[in-house]
Amino acid sequence: MAQKENHHKVVTFGEVLMRLSPPGYRKLVHSDILEYYFGGTEMNVAASLSRFGVHAQQITNVSDDLVGDAAISVMRGHGIDVSEVNRVPHPLGLYFLETGSGMRASRIAYNRLYGAFAHIRPEMVDWEHILRDADYLHWTGISPAISEGAYQTLKEGLEAANRLGVTVTADPAYRSNLWQYGRNGTEVLRALVANSHILIGGVNEINEILETDFDHSKDGFVSACKQLQDDCPNITKVFDKVRTGLSASWQKVYGHAWTGDEYISGEELEIAQVVDRIGTGDAFAAGVIYGLIHFEDRDTLRFANAACALKHTIPGDANLVSVEEVLEVMKGNTGGRIKR
Amino acid sequence: MAQKENHHKVVTFGEVLMRLSPPGYRKLVHSDILEYYFGGTEMNVAASLSRFGVHAQQITNVSDDLVGDAAISVMRGHGIDVSEVNRVPHPLGLYFLETGSGMRASRIAYNRLYGAFAHIRPEMVDWEHILRDADYLHWTGISPAISEGAYQTLKEGLEAANRLGVTVTADPAYRSNLWQYGRNGTEVLRALVANSHILIGGVNEINEILETDFDHSKDGFVSACKQLQDDCPNITKVFDKVRTGLSASWQKVYGHAWTGDEYISGEELEIAQVVDRIGTGDAFAAGVIYGLIHFEDRDTLRFANAACALKHTIPGDANLVSVEEVLEVMKGNTGGRIKR
Amino acid sequence: MAQKENHHKVVTFGEVLMRLSPPGYRKLVHSDILEYYFGGTEMNVAASLSRFGVHAQQITNVSDDLVGDAAISVMRGHGIDVSEVNRVPHPLGLYFLETGSGMRASRIAYNRLYGAFAHIRPEMVDWEHILRDADYLHWTGISPAISEGAYQTLKEGLEAANRLGVTVTADPAYRSNLWQYGRNGTEVLRALVANSHILIGGVNEINEILETDFDHSKDGFVSACKQLQDDCPNITKVFDKVRTGLSASWQKVYGHAWTGDEYISGEELEIAQVVDRIGTGDAFAAGVIYGLIHFEDRDTLRFANAACALKHTIPGDANLVSVEEVLEVMKGNTGGRIKR
Amino acid sequence: MAQKENHHKVVTFGEVLMRLSPPGYRKLVHSDILEYYFGGTEMNVAASLSRFGVHAQQITNVSDDLVGDAAISVMRGHGIDVSEVNRVPHPLGLYFLETGSGMRASRIAYNRLYGAFAHIRPEMVDWEHILRDADYLHWTGISPAISEGAYQTLKEGLEAANRLGVTVTADPAYRSNLWQYGRNGTEVLRALVANSHILIGGVNEINEILETDFDHSKDGFVSACKQLQDDCPNITKVFDKVRTGLSASWQKVYGHAWTGDEYISGEELEIAQVVDRIGTGDAFAAGVIYGLIHFEDRDTLRFANAACALKHTIPGDANLVSVEEVLEVMKGNTGGRIKR
Amino acid sequence: MAQKENHHKVVTFGEVLMRLSPPGYRKLVHSDILEYYFGGTEMNVAASLSRFGVHAQQITNVSDDLVGDAAISVMRGHGIDVSEVNRVPHPLGLYFLETGSGMRASRIAYNRLYGAFAHIRPEMVDWEHILRDADYLHWTGISPAISEGAYQTLKEGLEAANRLGVTVTADPAYRSNLWQYGRNGTEVLRALVANSHILIGGVNEINEILETDFDHSKDGFVSACKQLQDDCPNITKVFDKVRTGLSASWQKVYGHAWTGDEYISGEELEIAQVVDRIGTGDAFAAGVIYGLIHFEDRDTLRFANAACALKHTIPGDANLVSVEEVLEVMKGNTGGRIKR
Amino acid sequence: MAQKENHHKVVTFGEVLMRLSPPGYRKLVHSDILEYYFGGTEMNVAASLSRFGVHAQQITNVSDDLVGDAAISVMRGHGIDVSEVNRVPHPLGLYFLETGSGMRASRIAYNRLYGAFAHIRPEMVDWEHILRDADYLHWTGISPAISEGAYQTLKEGLEAANRLGVTVTADPAYRSNLWQYGRNGTEVLRALVANSHILIGGVNEINEILETDFDHSKDGFVSACKQLQDDCPNITKVFDKVRTGLSASWQKVYGHAWTGDEYISGEELEIAQVVDRIGTGDAFAAGVIYGLIHFEDRDTLRFANAACALKHTIPGDANLVSVEEVLEVMKGNTGGRIKR
Repeated sequence: MAQKENHHKVVTFGEVLMRLSPPGYRKLVHSDILEYYFGGTEMNVAASLSRFGVHAQQITNVSDDLVGDAAISVMRGHGIDVSEVNRVPHPLGLYFLETGSGMRASRIAYNRLYGAFAHIRPEMVDWEHILRDADYLHWTGISPAISEGAYQTLKEGLEAANRLGVTVTADPAYRSNLWQYGRNGTEVLRALVANSHILIGGVNEINEILETDFDHSKDGFVSACKQLQDDCPNITKVFDKVRTGLSASWQKVYGHAWTGDEYISGEELEIAQVVDRIGTGDAFAAGVIYGLIHFEDRDTLRFANAACALKHTIPGDANLVSVEEVLEVMKGNTGGRIKR
Repeated sequence: MAQKENHHKVVTFGEVLMRLSPPGYRKLVHSDILEYYFGGTEMNVAASLSRFGVHAQQITNVSDDLVGDAAISVMRGHGIDVSEVNRVPHPLGLYFLETGSGMRASRIAYNRLYGAFAHIRPEMVDWEHILRDADYLHWTGISPAISEGAYQTLKEGLEAANRLGVTVTADPAYRSNLWQYGRNGTEVLRALVANSHILIGGVNEINEILETDFDHSKDGFVSACKQLQDDCPNITKVFDKVRTGLSASWQKVYGHAWTGDEYISGEELEIAQVVDRIGTGDAFAAGVIYGLIHFEDRDTLRFANAACALKHTIPGDANLVSVEEVLEVMKGNTGGRIKR
Repeated sequence: MAQKENHHKVVTFGEVLMRLSPPGYRKLVHSDILEYYFGGTEMNVAASLSRFGVHAQQITNVSDDLVGDAAISVMRGHGIDVSEVNRVPHPLGLYFLETGSGMRASRIAYNRLYGAFAHIRPEMVDWEHILRDADYLHWTGISPAISEGAYQTLKEGLEAANRLGVTVTADPAYRSNLWQYGRNGTEVLRALVANSHILIGGVNEINEILETDFDHSKDGFVSACKQLQDDCPNITKVFDKVRTGLSASWQKVYGHAWTGDEYISGEELEIAQVVDRIGTGDAFAAGVIYGLIHFEDRDTLRFANAACALKHTIPGDANLVSVEEVLEVMKGNTGGRIKR
Repeated sequence: MAQKENHHKVVTFGEVLMRLSPPGYRKLVHSDILEYYFGGTEMNVAASLSRFGVHAQQITNVSDDLVGDAAISVMRGHGIDVSEVNRVPHPLGLYFLETGSGMRASRIAYNRLYGAFAHIRPEMVDWEHILRDADYLHWTGISPAISEGAYQTLKEGLEAANRLGVTVTADPAYRSNLWQYGRNGTEVLRALVANSHILIGGVNEINEILETDFDHSKDGFVSACKQLQDDCPNITKVFDKVRTGLSASWQKVYGHAWTGDEYISGEELEIAQVVDRIGTGDAFAAGVIYGLIHFEDRDTLRFANAACALKHTIPGDANLVSVEEVLEVMKGNTGGRIKR
Repeated sequence: MAQKENHHKVVTFGEVLMRLSPPGYRKLVHSDILEYYFGGTEMNVAASLSRFGVHAQQITNVSDDLVGDAAISVMRGHGIDVSEVNRVPHPLGLYFLETGSGMRASRIAYNRLYGAFAHIRPEMVDWEHILRDADYLHWTGISPAISEGAYQTLKEGLEAANRLGVTVTADPAYRSNLWQYGRNGTEVLRALVANSHILIGGVNEINEILETDFDHSKDGFVSACKQLQDDCPNITKVFDKVRTGLSASWQKVYGHAWTGDEYISGEELEIAQVVDRIGTGDAFAAGVIYGLIHFEDRDTLRFANAACALKHTIPGDANLVSVEEVLEVMKGNTGGRIKR
Repeated sequence: MAQKENHHKVVTFGEVLMRLSPPGYRKLVHSDILEYYFGGTEMNVAASLSRFGVHAQQITNVSDDLVGDAAISVMRGHGIDVSEVNRVPHPLGLYFLETGSGMRASRIAYNRLYGAFAHIRPEMVDWEHILRDADYLHWTGISPAISEGAYQTLKEGLEAANRLGVTVTADPAYRSNLWQYGRNGTEVLRALVANSHILIGGVNEINEILETDFDHSKDGFVSACKQLQDDCPNITKVFDKVRTGLSASWQKVYGHAWTGDEYISGEELEIAQVVDRIGTGDAFAAGVIYGLIHFEDRDTLRFANAACALKHTIPGDANLVSVEEVLEVMKGNTGGRIKR
């Protein structure tokens, strides 16, 4: 029996980044090699969805050099559709990561502001063609923070999605060290969220977008969601994960959501030995989108949180787990038996 | 002063397997190298006993190629007597392991059903010669599950051992994904255990062999052991370890036993950062056999459990610890001081 | 501008093999890690063609386990179309390689005879569907040597190709250590070549197939080709590479061909520091197929030989070079300048 | 703006050791590579101080071979002043480390007794020149335990420091497996402490030096410090860290001190996943010296303990953290957020 | 006896680049790790001179992040004086390298145009202070090609050098893929060479600067040098190396020079197994500068060519050889005996 | 069929050394890992003979620590009989190696003069017991150069061998940087050779021992051998290899011998890409001893030279080749075909 076809299509828009880090918990100065992965928050979502069997297509710019060749290979390896990726004569964005441990925080140094993705422009992306057979379009707050071109391209994508009936999922994280090209991040994100349907985020993101001051209690979350729906009536649901960090190596996560009608929350999962924290939020987002396709809201939340928890145990940016592995954790099989 | 001679001889019968796994907690797809070890449950017992100073001889088939050459070197390196190992023109069995972490289970893919060991036949093994100076013969439930030849060879070995007064230790784990050559596993194992003297296992194994349904309480264990002695009167003692898995990375183990007269149990040991869980049962079995040679039953149980716990901290299949290191843990020195 | 579409499609049929080798020139016993690649002679052709921008689709069986998952990822990474790959519950074939150096020969140990591909059967492959939009079907003498099922599946593929007007390229190497399932290799290969159109091979292969005894002179080659065309009138052209091995590390290759009308030959290329010899023949075959699509015969031969020579400089099974890099060597730029 | 000049100078005297260890938690026999670092207790202090921006100068002998060349490069890389390091025709001292885990203790094998540092003699060190612009001279109990020459050289250094008004910090750990050249360690250490001003150590060290028997209570510590000040009136303060080892991988540390006037203590910090325990005491000592330069006593203690805790998270001997990272932990930011 | 002081000081001005490359001859896509080095043509010269015992000071900008921290450590490790290096909030320039082999060319992908060094400006460098005790100032044609600020800073440096009597060595390679900020490279380089005293380069560089068309014969070289001296009367000597590349792995080099009075040339050296070709020109330049300090012209040329040849055998950018090792090759000891 | 018994026994006496080297052609300062091997000239001979199927027993001291444990494992892995190895409380000797390339010589730094082997004394070795069933005793000039104890122990061994009719093979290389304990190397070696039967060496060694001045011509060699037989009448044959080093990476070797009656010589073998030159002389010696057991003199010489040539292609100290691989090279199969 041949590989099954994927019947749902999710389009992701965002930067592909190369991540370079010394092995283990080494400092850069104490290692003469670097491990590398290709990731980026939206590509991580695409990779995870593709591993779940969804048709995931990434819209991005990739450098027209040997680094870009490798990025394309890795994306293809995940099963991501790269047929509409542009190759451009600018270097791929990248970052260096020293992985923290215990009370030592991870350190990151970025090199992305003049990279391939920063040079994307609306005329490089044929949204009508890309979205015509899509079910979802996913974006995050990082893309419009990179450059005017990235913002305009995303804006046109959201408009096309709304025209074509494609559901838009938004993870509007505000990253203060970006937004260097002149736009006001808060205004831009508010306008983009207004054109979206599912918010993946919580009180922090809503406060940032609406310039409000809701607290982190359950009531604060519910009030914030209601306020968001008042201000952005296209938004129908909000899915959020809550993290408690005992140390860089010991984390707890649970999900809660506003379904439009009610507040729901899931069990907390504990990761006592974090292997890799990068991409755990993206794993949650991919879990939400997979859940929206296949489950009702409570299971969507549980699936997304289980996916997020599992990502903490996997090196690299992408959540290389199958639907079956996530379901096992949802069922409470967290004792780590050997699957022979 | 030269290396001391080993005065006790233990013979182990079973497959030598190559284990291939990506480093750390990587998925195969995210690593371009694999670490390898040679192991196999009975060879792990032989390796551990050899490191304890016991003369351990492995009876097996090994491929007549470059992989088999390396396996022989590694066995010799452990000090295992390979003088009666057969070299055959079939590939060595192997398996791939993705090491789990936290709530992510380890995954294994086997390639062993047509390997060198599956081709063993009784005429390849001169049991009379091998066992004439042996004290113990150790077998597990995996060997008779591989092939008719492996079963028949083991069967003849147990008969020879009983003729020659060699004590037979049995670890009759039932592995449901084996037993593909036609025999009924339960019947075979029951008959083999009937020819054995020490059972290394517990309620699960006894229920499987006797087709009973004892529970996991202390009373269940004692009743199961008594029933086993009724059905298999050669069995004199039962040693078992009990594992609690908080996650793939966090495990607790303790040992309990039926000495023929009474129930005894030992302190629980906790391993909060599991380095490698493969071979921990084999470390327990080697500890039991070493204890049977040198200690009375309570210390045998404590030694075996300490050996088992230590194995969780050592990469690879074999328990590369000395008697002194096990005794330190038995004494309660578990704080991990540096030995200068 | 988005990635270009591939307008020509080549279908390859054959086993995907995992290759495991110690790094550098180490012996297995002197390394505790193994590097791995996925290859196999037909997949190598597909990978090379895909890197050249051709739509290459591989028909094969891959294990339904973690190893197969990784193989699929790697194939996708090369850009190979895996939409018709079957996943089956048998282990992926594999081999161990100790890379030779100087006068030391490489050593290989195979483990493939009971693997996933050996279990392929005609009903697993919908040749009509697969070949309906294909230009070429490529096979080698290894596939029909693995199992009856592989032979029957290939046989049906060639028949479908001939029905559908797909050009069949054949690399009918006879590997004497295969053919263990009962068929006569010579007869099988002769029948399959009779259903093919382009032979990639030379005097050795023709002598083997026709049971003739042509010598290795130019005249011998021409006579052999003419005899082949007499016996197998579907064959229109023969492309062959000739290797001279000064040592495992120092090789010379040139190509010659019978175009149906005339004998042509190309310049010899010398590789004084062989990095990896595996897959050099497959690189030649891929070069021939690419040439058949884009060039006339002389340039096809030169392109194929340049591709073959370049493969000697690249680790792994696949020829990870672009068309531009091959053309550079064809132009005589073999001095190894740095491309900034 | 150019790199800032360092205005305080600390001189350290002691052996530079090469540390060789298998990666991860491997046993030597299960790894064919070794990671190496250059360290040594006093060099670790110098490296840490240099990373804190202090001018740190190491006085030592280094082998006049390729190993010594590398040691010099690494010292320079840390920013340590090596202008007065002697190169001698004796091998650099070294040790092998198998890193423990959980209840398995780390094992160390030394090779230092006939090395470069053991051959140091007073005439090789121009203390007047070296200390004329120094603020601190740091020594530990290891140096005088190596050889008569090392002892005499240190003794002259302390005398010069006292003449020149340089503050002497002493970490007089008694290592019983050294002291093989004939001197009585207790007498030597007592005489050297009498010429020092700050003691970095606690009840164990004071009992060893004074041949007393104070207990490990708070009162015991205070009484020991007062007794020390009676016997060695140059001593003005005592800084000590207290460690609780739950396992090799799980440790707790807090600092306490006698300021000459009062007992002070700091919060306990917990390291649930120890990455590398070597050099944690040296990180504390470097923190004390940095604190003496920049802070009052309470913050000195807190800074030193935070530095010590952070070292547990960093591979290698040296505490590669900045002042800012230590201050973060002092502020209670121990949840391991990512610093983008 | 302590490390000797360096009595000659050479100042180098240029970018520090991080080089990232897959190990061995791997393509990026076939390796999941990258080796890294810090280099850059002028830093390579500084590193080599420092290893020769010369006081070498690098003037540059380095990123104020974890990558910059590591770069500073590596520079210090070489012994390079970094006291005047600026730390700036822009990423360090970097490049990716796939090392070629045989007829396969190396491929490079740069990411440097918006990096730390591109942001250097004259007011960041106090040339009077830096050059007051310097003997040589070395620059290459890459620095003024990066940005207007780099050009202006270099221009002021040359003016200061001429005021202060510092000898200026120029390696004015014209790199056509740089020079993107608007200046005409030829004009800029000609003006800068006019302010220099020693040219390290040959007919290619002179033709580029003077827009002439001299050929590569001996006469062409001599005529070009004379013309250069006519146009740029400050130039007193020209040192050039001539490379013949049989393949990426097999190279031949010899040096020739115009001493102002006469043409001299040295023996050709052959490197049949190139380990690393990056930085071989910088090794020649460092050899020339070392020779100018210590030798007359013929030995300068021979020393520089031997240094260049040796660099081909050393991984990384810097020529990690001692003066003694270069002198050995100058003496003709090229048979590679083991130095015990 | 079980592993075959070895019927000939060769005893080797000498130091086991750990070799530590950066991977590839790296300098120590440019690698943060070291590869290690256990070797030592006599152990290399034992390892090679054991791989050839001969019973090889090593007499030596090994450190009683984790390094010694690993050495014992590696020796056992080669199949070397370690039953009479002493464990002593002194560190194992070791050396660091930077592998040269091209015209760059390898560099070595030793740390062996106070190691485990230096502490061997005659009473630690029961020569009568060890040699009672031996055919050969092999020694080299390094052992008596280490310490008085090593010399006396060897001296007694030769005496016992002569008493017991064991053939003594001598490789009396004079290493001028050893011999630091007071004896005159020339006198000692001459006396020991006088008690030996086969000399493995040539004009250099004979000139050193006899204080003669024979030249390197064929006549010089023959005259030297005759003189040696005059002075040391126990010597019956002399086997020697002659090396020509084009570079560290390109070597040629051939063997010649004096059989007592005539001069014979063999074909020269060329190694254009040396992988590892350490232990090539030991591979020759092992080949000579194997030849003495199985062949007449001409084939002994050819076998030894082929073994020596093959060792150049294998990483590490030991010649990990089988008799079959050596015979292939003897037959002239030096083109490096792949052995499937």
